[in-house]
Amino acid sequence: MFTKQELTDYTKEAREKWLNHISIDCVVFGFHEGQLKVLLLKMRNEAKWYLPGGFVLKQEQLDVAANRILKERTSLDHIFLQQFHVFGDPARSQPHTDMYNGMVEDKDNWFATRFITIGYYALVDFHNTVPTPDAMSEACVWCNLEEVPALSLDHGQILENALYTLRLQLNYLPIGYNLMPNEFTMPELQKLYETILGKKLDRRNFQRKILAFDILNRSEHPRKGGAHKAPYLYSFNLEKYEQALKDGLASGW
Amino acid sequence: MFTKQELTDYTKEAREKWLNHISIDCVVFGFHEGQLKVLLLKMRNEAKWYLPGGFVLKQEQLDVAANRILKERTSLDHIFLQQFHVFGDPARSQPHTDMYNGMVEDKDNWFATRFITIGYYALVDFHNTVPTPDAMSEACVWCNLEEVPALSLDHGQILENALYTLRLQLNYLPIGYNLMPNEFTMPELQKLYETILGKKLDRRNFQRKILAFDILNRSEHPRKGGAHKAPYLYSFNLEKYEQALKDGLASGW
Repeated sequence: MFTKQELTDYTKEAREKWLNHISIDCVVFGFHEGQLKVLLLKMRNEAKWYLPGGFVLKQEQLDVAANRILKERTSLDHIFLQQFHVFGDPARSQPHTDMYNGMVEDKDNWFATRFITIGYYALVDFHNTVPTPDAMSEACVWCNLEEVPALSLDHGQILENALYTLRLQLNYLPIGYNLMPNEFTMPELQKLYETILGKKLDRRNFQRKILAFDILNRSEHPRKGGAHKAPYLYSFNLEKYEQALKDGLASGW
Repeated sequence: MFTKQELTDYTKEAREKWLNHISIDCVVFGFHEGQLKVLLLKMRNEAKWYLPGGFVLKQEQLDVAANRILKERTSLDHIFLQQFHVFGDPARSQPHTDMYNGMVEDKDNWFATRFITIGYYALVDFHNTVPTPDAMSEACVWCNLEEVPALSLDHGQILENALYTLRLQLNYLPIGYNLMPNEFTMPELQKLYETILGKKLDRRNFQRKILAFDILNRSEHPRKGGAHKAPYLYSFNLEKYEQALKDGLASGW
């Protein structure tokens, strides 16, 4: 928490350094072995939790800013973040000013200005990504989706919108590379979809639809092991996968 | 085109009135009887064409601003505009300053600041929507997609991205209400999809997929007329259509 002088100084510096009125918030979903989680920060001296967020340098690309912000606040690097929605309700910045309300004039309070925030999201293997909080935060943790606490500002709405986007994208974009092992069985891939959708899927329908996407290779050798009927192993056909990321899935029109 | 004094005055007023660094650009696709077009403006004294765009009032909702801008610049009202992407390359604002380059200091030139633009798009029946240019523009016309001229700034890229989004959305959201007559035949609806996608679709596959969406009612009475085998008539089931707009199509996961 800033003192009056610190807030005035911060405001002056921030106006020079950052593109005014723009912020970025990141929704990072973590998946591992059938669990879906989201990355949350808890600021020092504040009760509420936040999505990792920050500002854009005067001459910085938005995608670059999103990755820098995520790295600075959580230590996570090389995350494939995608823009999904802009949140610009004039009322959304209001609660942010409460903490410093009346301490200085609005013109001397960076946090009293209106911010349009650009939402970015990613889906990563959270087993391989160990977040570390920055100096402003006392905690940075993976939180189970069903156990997300009340979030600050409109971050609850941003999280909900990101989850909605992720679920819709299962219908037209490939998913799972970097989340699945090199080779996987059909039930293992189905589990990824079920976890994101939060519901069970029919085994036959799943297999039929996912094969129609034409992004999988089937290995000629079933998985070795003691099972009587060993399951087939699949891997992503990276060339077709990349193409589908650009054009949409082959099951489309 | 502004004089030096006008530019300085405009900058001062604009800084007070608008949210700095934010703009909105609208891609309005028009469809009617198998033709797809896009709405373009031509500014007075400029050779190039633009998408209809503008700025956001200090305390205005983004969606409200998008509709106001479209109405002010083209006279079109009650258009269902949807946000689809933010364009924020620091270099994107550069050509905008060329016209006024060196006329005044950058700090006195509103157009010399960096703008992040929020892209909105809509698909309307262009037969029912007759645009009128505002005072700044000498023309506001529907242009065939294949005949779009070089656009100013990054507006060509914005148009391309909007079309990409529209095509992907055919896979997970319903489309066609307000574009089709109350009752229509299957080939008529197929024509809408083919026009947007820019390609022919297989008749049987189209029928199977569109019926699986479960958003159509089939009339018990075929269309009257001289044809030997009269085609069935369909209409949208509005309740299911609205639900699919929220949840995605039933053909999804």
